[in-house]
Amino acid sequence: MNEERLQRILEQVKSGLLGIEDACQILRVLPYEELGFAKLDHQRALRDNFPEVIYCEGKTPEQIITLLRQLALHNDNVIGTRASVEVYEQVAQGLPEIQYSPLARIIYMQRSPLPARGRVAVITAGTADVPVAEEAALCLELMGAEAQRIYDVGVAGLHRLLDHIDQINQAQVVIVAAGMEGALASVVGGLTKRPVIAVPTSVGYGASFQGLAALLAMLNSCASGVGVVNIDNGYGAAALAAAILNTHKK
Amino acid sequence: MNEERLQRILEQVKSGLLGIEDACQILRVLPYEELGFAKLDHQRALRDNFPEVIYCEGKTPEQIITLLRQLALHNDNVIGTRASVEVYEQVAQGLPEIQYSPLARIIYMQRSPLPARGRVAVITAGTADVPVAEEAALCLELMGAEAQRIYDVGVAGLHRLLDHIDQINQAQVVIVAAGMEGALASVVGGLTKRPVIAVPTSVGYGASFQGLAALLAMLNSCASGVGVVNIDNGYGAAALAAAILNTHKK
Amino acid sequence: MNEERLQRILEQVKSGLLGIEDACQILRVLPYEELGFAKLDHQRALRDNFPEVIYCEGKTPEQIITLLRQLALHNDNVIGTRASVEVYEQVAQGLPEIQYSPLARIIYMQRSPLPARGRVAVITAGTADVPVAEEAALCLELMGAEAQRIYDVGVAGLHRLLDHIDQINQAQVVIVAAGMEGALASVVGGLTKRPVIAVPTSVGYGASFQGLAALLAMLNSCASGVGVVNIDNGYGAAALAAAILNTHKK
Amino acid sequence: MNEERLQRILEQVKSGLLGIEDACQILRVLPYEELGFAKLDHQRALRDNFPEVIYCEGKTPEQIITLLRQLALHNDNVIGTRASVEVYEQVAQGLPEIQYSPLARIIYMQRSPLPARGRVAVITAGTADVPVAEEAALCLELMGAEAQRIYDVGVAGLHRLLDHIDQINQAQVVIVAAGMEGALASVVGGLTKRPVIAVPTSVGYGASFQGLAALLAMLNSCASGVGVVNIDNGYGAAALAAAILNTHKK
Amino acid sequence: MNEERLQRILEQVKSGLLGIEDACQILRVLPYEELGFAKLDHQRALRDNFPEVIYCEGKTPEQIITLLRQLALHNDNVIGTRASVEVYEQVAQGLPEIQYSPLARIIYMQRSPLPARGRVAVITAGTADVPVAEEAALCLELMGAEAQRIYDVGVAGLHRLLDHIDQINQAQVVIVAAGMEGALASVVGGLTKRPVIAVPTSVGYGASFQGLAALLAMLNSCASGVGVVNIDNGYGAAALAAAILNTHKK
Amino acid sequence: MNEERLQRILEQVKSGLLGIEDACQILRVLPYEELGFAKLDHQRALRDNFPEVIYCEGKTPEQIITLLRQLALHNDNVIGTRASVEVYEQVAQGLPEIQYSPLARIIYMQRSPLPARGRVAVITAGTADVPVAEEAALCLELMGAEAQRIYDVGVAGLHRLLDHIDQINQAQVVIVAAGMEGALASVVGGLTKRPVIAVPTSVGYGASFQGLAALLAMLNSCASGVGVVNIDNGYGAAALAAAILNTHKK
Amino acid sequence: MNEERLQRILEQVKSGLLGIEDACQILRVLPYEELGFAKLDHQRALRDNFPEVIYCEGKTPEQIITLLRQLALHNDNVIGTRASVEVYEQVAQGLPEIQYSPLARIIYMQRSPLPARGRVAVITAGTADVPVAEEAALCLELMGAEAQRIYDVGVAGLHRLLDHIDQINQAQVVIVAAGMEGALASVVGGLTKRPVIAVPTSVGYGASFQGLAALLAMLNSCASGVGVVNIDNGYGAAALAAAILNTHKK
Amino acid sequence: MNEERLQRILEQVKSGLLGIEDACQILRVLPYEELGFAKLDHQRALRDNFPEVIYCEGKTPEQIITLLRQLALHNDNVIGTRASVEVYEQVAQGLPEIQYSPLARIIYMQRSPLPARGRVAVITAGTADVPVAEEAALCLELMGAEAQRIYDVGVAGLHRLLDHIDQINQAQVVIVAAGMEGALASVVGGLTKRPVIAVPTSVGYGASFQGLAALLAMLNSCASGVGVVNIDNGYGAAALAAAILNTHKK
Repeated sequence: MNEERLQRILEQVKSGLLGIEDACQILRVLPYEELGFAKLDHQRALRDNFPEVIYCEGKTPEQIITLLRQLALHNDNVIGTRASVEVYEQVAQGLPEIQYSPLARIIYMQRSPLPARGRVAVITAGTADVPVAEEAALCLELMGAEAQRIYDVGVAGLHRLLDHIDQINQAQVVIVAAGMEGALASVVGGLTKRPVIAVPTSVGYGASFQGLAALLAMLNSCASGVGVVNIDNGYGAAALAAAILNTHKK
Repeated sequence: MNEERLQRILEQVKSGLLGIEDACQILRVLPYEELGFAKLDHQRALRDNFPEVIYCEGKTPEQIITLLRQLALHNDNVIGTRASVEVYEQVAQGLPEIQYSPLARIIYMQRSPLPARGRVAVITAGTADVPVAEEAALCLELMGAEAQRIYDVGVAGLHRLLDHIDQINQAQVVIVAAGMEGALASVVGGLTKRPVIAVPTSVGYGASFQGLAALLAMLNSCASGVGVVNIDNGYGAAALAAAILNTHKK
Repeated sequence: MNEERLQRILEQVKSGLLGIEDACQILRVLPYEELGFAKLDHQRALRDNFPEVIYCEGKTPEQIITLLRQLALHNDNVIGTRASVEVYEQVAQGLPEIQYSPLARIIYMQRSPLPARGRVAVITAGTADVPVAEEAALCLELMGAEAQRIYDVGVAGLHRLLDHIDQINQAQVVIVAAGMEGALASVVGGLTKRPVIAVPTSVGYGASFQGLAALLAMLNSCASGVGVVNIDNGYGAAALAAAILNTHKK
Repeated sequence: MNEERLQRILEQVKSGLLGIEDACQILRVLPYEELGFAKLDHQRALRDNFPEVIYCEGKTPEQIITLLRQLALHNDNVIGTRASVEVYEQVAQGLPEIQYSPLARIIYMQRSPLPARGRVAVITAGTADVPVAEEAALCLELMGAEAQRIYDVGVAGLHRLLDHIDQINQAQVVIVAAGMEGALASVVGGLTKRPVIAVPTSVGYGASFQGLAALLAMLNSCASGVGVVNIDNGYGAAALAAAILNTHKK
Repeated sequence: MNEERLQRILEQVKSGLLGIEDACQILRVLPYEELGFAKLDHQRALRDNFPEVIYCEGKTPEQIITLLRQLALHNDNVIGTRASVEVYEQVAQGLPEIQYSPLARIIYMQRSPLPARGRVAVITAGTADVPVAEEAALCLELMGAEAQRIYDVGVAGLHRLLDHIDQINQAQVVIVAAGMEGALASVVGGLTKRPVIAVPTSVGYGASFQGLAALLAMLNSCASGVGVVNIDNGYGAAALAAAILNTHKK
Repeated sequence: MNEERLQRILEQVKSGLLGIEDACQILRVLPYEELGFAKLDHQRALRDNFPEVIYCEGKTPEQIITLLRQLALHNDNVIGTRASVEVYEQVAQGLPEIQYSPLARIIYMQRSPLPARGRVAVITAGTADVPVAEEAALCLELMGAEAQRIYDVGVAGLHRLLDHIDQINQAQVVIVAAGMEGALASVVGGLTKRPVIAVPTSVGYGASFQGLAALLAMLNSCASGVGVVNIDNGYGAAALAAAILNTHKK
Repeated sequence: MNEERLQRILEQVKSGLLGIEDACQILRVLPYEELGFAKLDHQRALRDNFPEVIYCEGKTPEQIITLLRQLALHNDNVIGTRASVEVYEQVAQGLPEIQYSPLARIIYMQRSPLPARGRVAVITAGTADVPVAEEAALCLELMGAEAQRIYDVGVAGLHRLLDHIDQINQAQVVIVAAGMEGALASVVGGLTKRPVIAVPTSVGYGASFQGLAALLAMLNSCASGVGVVNIDNGYGAAALAAAILNTHKK
Repeated sequence: MNEERLQRILEQVKSGLLGIEDACQILRVLPYEELGFAKLDHQRALRDNFPEVIYCEGKTPEQIITLLRQLALHNDNVIGTRASVEVYEQVAQGLPEIQYSPLARIIYMQRSPLPARGRVAVITAGTADVPVAEEAALCLELMGAEAQRIYDVGVAGLHRLLDHIDQINQAQVVIVAAGMEGALASVVGGLTKRPVIAVPTSVGYGASFQGLAALLAMLNSCASGVGVVNIDNGYGAAALAAAILNTHKK
């Protein structure tokens, strides 16, 4: 689209319909929509693997409704992360079509589910890591990937993990969400040749320092093939997994 | 192989060639080679995307020679990272076949180059980040990937980066090595839909705290599709990129 | 004024109206007003570029009213930052003349607007950074500067920023408020020769550590001409910008 | 220059000398010079207030000579920071014209001194902070500003500072370099209405943590109008000061 | 049990009752119970010194009830840590048999008290450390150890501690819970030859940084024979003490 | 008293009233009172400069009442710090004699005021530091010292401080409570030869990190004669000041 | 011995041989030997599980010789840790009897080996962790324990570890030395019911922060029964293991 | 002197010898001597308890000689801290009168020893802390105080400390230098009513983080009457002790 518009502009210059000075003004500008408090970026799906995702924390329900509505005009599937029940309930009054996953804390619209481009194993060390994993899993499903949930297989009971090695290796990408010491990422990384996306969670006693311990552990993984995203950032893990699944697409 | 050996053991149990108690002893053991000071892991190529890579720092030249020799018995291509010139020169006396890249600080053997499974763009913010990028690029080439080097395109002169967008988008995976504030990872992440592997480097003034500033910046990237590896860990970035390129392989 | 008073004292010494010992006592003392719980510093406008600004957090509404009233006796324009709605409502009962910006969390009086000495571009990476930016923008307007708001132009969608380069370059000073990885400060710094005041915000996922990631990033900016103020300190950015605009004033 | 080239390209498109597709290719590219290991950015003086400055640390003397030579082709005044005596001596063999300040650790060429656009007071708390201050002062002089050096006026002997208040206020901008607790930035900030650029230095006992204590202190300055740059970054302070002096220039 | 089951499987293979492929499937799997949101690990008592302990924080009362019920089917004694009064009250409705210690914040069932395998001295520096110590002491009693409570004997009044040296030395293991500067661990370590388990608590003024000061102090103990567990982790200390008491058991 | 008791024991040994073994038992024991949840240390006034002070945070009103009552049996003056209004109101029902300072958050009994042994200047940088200063000042008055309050004299308006230099120098000890960058401690330290006790407060914007910035600044004071206590620890400053005032007492 | 001396003193008091005042003086004093620069603590073996161990770092060879000689007068087995080859060679000239392990960096005398009280498994994740493990293993052997070395069994190749589970479970105590992400401690902790002593090592890339990542990981171990000692502190691990082995000794 | 000079100036104004404008210029200036690279502060002894002390680290021998010579013109006793042997040897050639303590790393001149104003106990936990303690002790002796050295009495062998309680209590002030966990400061603080100056040292294993562990421990001392100075800052402790000894002097 952008490319087309650029060509159109240059054609107008060539044909004299557009002055050179005016073209100079336009040429460094790509289109987006101005909403006042935010600039919606409809082209993101071109540069990214999914339309813009709304991060709901710190936005008012009114702002969220406006953003979602605008997105919904141009996209079949729309995601808002970090949405509390209260936000969902207010948004649902303005947008009855909206759905909600309280575990993943995601509001979403899914008019035409995308075909799954591949499978992602989403693994957690414990039960407390599940909300982060669910944020990843639901995002993946909305972005067109199959999410294989394998929860509560932390290294304190290694046999629980070893039992799922086959399932893990049948996925193209692996997401590991773990708090405390975050050892699961290294252990999984040592058991599979698949790319592992490690998500530290803020689960743990005092010296976990809200996920810092797991974060450092994952960055220092002795197993190779591990990339790390931000603490509790399930969406970020899903977006990276989707990018990897799309790698062989032009 | 493992699977076969397991079947063979079970068959021996079945046929009575192997006692049950002995089988119990064997069954949790997978094969590796004991060298005394280290345990070489020949099966890693099965679980991983490349044979074991030797991390030379903190090992004596004698240890490195022994490890490389053993690896070379079973593998055509062998890598040792973080090797100083002094280590190279001593290793070369025992292993004349060995090659060395002083910039990447890698010693390696490449008897039969692997065909490139895909292309990885390796980008640096500045000149000082090049050694880390070269570690990544050379590892990629030895692991069977094409490395497209794009160096010194930091965000202080954005046009240098914008000039290479097409090159970047023609790769399947993007590696960004940057120190200081590490902003390049976010900017590249915002310009491509490819998975971006961010490598913070320890380049910078005092408050970079040996790469911590870039590390935190990359973990907090506002662009999605970014995974982070350890500070100055060019090899780790290459290994993750290779895993991603192999995603669609069974 | 101080200078005059010092001369008057010395003249009184010369004329014998003031004893030498008494003069010794007085001479290290500059005038301020004692309020018991605080010492109002009416001369600050001489040493600073604006009368004292009240930081409302941690003060009672009564204290704030007293301070504002005293300031209002000698100044046309008065500012109180970090004021919640509750504080505003209580203060408004005692000082009906007071105005409030809920977004900027500022209470203020503006009897005779100051003429704008110059223009400051106030830029944010995202919507969540807007409150900090509004604190800066409103302070600037009250201090006699034009604030050009350019919001939600983070580096994940670079074209949004590139579209405003001309606006940015038409300002004399640029303020950039950004959380997460704070990359916008470096990118803007690379695109303009204007002094850039970077304000890290506490917006972000876990590993932003309440603004630490953005703070470190901004201090390590690879672009030159960037000065950093405290996390979320919109007022501090405005005060520095006002000082810069007044640079060529005697 | 850029602007002109853009116009020329568009004119060629208009006149049919340049095909539309070729123009698309060119249009996002601004000119720079490819040196292999680095990309020299000759247009920086347009976007910045001085040609590109070479950061010598981590570069070989050969690289530095090449970079300086290329810069010297297009610029009268050239700066390389963080240059050791050894680097200077090797560079001087290839570039006899080069000058060196061992205190500021700067190599430079100054063929036609720029007229001073204003005066910057460069203040240090102690003698150990002088190298950082000299880096700032010499950069300023090469960038076309007068540097008023006021050294060793730390707050432990306040009268030394108070004696220079007039000098400080006669400058347009103030740079304060201080290690240990960095209190001088706040005290100077409280005594002048000029913008204060605070440079934390790595000078101090153990709990200064290589400049962290001074850095945090300066960011938390209770005086307004203070912007902070990186630890020991004298050049960064000079570049910001130069940008401020150029504020009223178009 | 595991061992037996393994033998049984192998015997079935030998006798032909079990196919080789099926055995392969089973052999890396140890039994656990799938509850959907969690995987109960009934064999933990074989690998550990006590059945799985439920960490109640972040789990719903329903989840806790389900987990406790399942555990109670196979175990006489069951522990849930970090349980608030609210959680207890809800759990008690579903599981009337459950008991609660509000000080230790533990819910538990103790159908057949285990005989004490040894004695553990549980010491606190102050009154505020008692909840952590009680978590340890009650867990110990449920795990089959005698807990000798010695509270409020911090080093500010050394005679209080010296008075209990005999009691301390009569225990086999010593647990020390201390916040603030955590010095008690070192002092006790210097007075006894028993292994000392140090538990930093989050008690203290600002610069204790929620237990970090005590944690670092305990890790740096100048007395030998001290092992450290996580901040406020009374249960962890008890589990380590129980493991030590069981050391001479086969 | 202790000394006397020791002599008495030895006399009993000498006279045969006490067996040697029993004496061995007793001899390492100094007297204190066992309250179950705490061990009251009545001899502290011998080793310390004031009877034990109750830190109320984290104790129940019942515990506080018991502790205060026991202390009140043997002491005329009793202090409880960090007491909320709610705690005061409950304690006052059991102990009507108790007094309360809401600003200092102290509950206390003062039956026979101690004569002041000297004067301590208690200085704050801002209004928000006053609660910490009041904790120090009231403790000092109860411990037998005169507190000279000098509030809101931060370095942003240096003349306010310079005006009080004489007052400061007339004290024997100086306490400085400051948040933000904590520069006041260094400046006061440079202006007086009296020992300065620096109390960092948790007042400040984000990068103050709850008092860390001020803490580090005060530890790195370029002025000599400065000792630092914990963040917000007004009582600790008072106790150290009292110890200094008692220095020349035997 | 102490006990006897105390009785002797009391007997002398009883018999009148010792005045009461003199006894008071003596009674709080336990015997040690004054060497001027250090106080040798010959009774430590009574309170500890081994005579005092000399930490050689920061001591001169002369000091070390003196300390070792004095220790050797009263003890058969003597240990000095953190001794470089240079220190060893100088010490050996004064003390030819001394032995040296360059890997463990320990100098020692072992005149009459102690019988092994039990077995300790000493495990490392990688080859680079071996020096720390050797410090632990050799200390254990000198302290009277059997050290079962199991090296290079990190979690990246889990089968290497699983192969040694039986060996590990046959020990009474397990020491795990690991750098990088330190996951091995948790995995081992999950596979054994033995007490696990975790030693973080300073091995790793940048974000290991010299062992901080492994330290935090081990403190946050999701497996129970894990106690942590200081970074690289092999001796500390051995001392704790020895204390545990001696638990059931009176 | 200052006071006199101020009076003289005012008298000159009164008598007309000095113009009012000239007096204005002079009046905020207190005398010091300009040396170019430093400003010697001869009046410091008036505001401080000793003439300016030269911190030698980072100064050239020439600068140190110049500074010492100037100081020696006006003072009988002169101190330079942090002086290496090399610095001493070079300084001694220019200033043969100079003396050196290699342990304390102090160069000094002591023409007329000051009478001791009191006694300070200087205590260390271990032998490695002695250099810091010696810096304090020698400074004290040069400043006119008796230093009672009590070394190697760390809490791992408490009896060594208890033996010196009387000596400690006979001093007016106590300095405690300790690394590792720094517990000695709290224990000493609990045993004496004297003010305790705690000096954390950088002695310790990895998790001491160069003195941070001891620093935090000392700031969190559960004993009252403890003030903390910077890591390894023996001079700072001496200066604070000297200020305390001078407290009752006018």
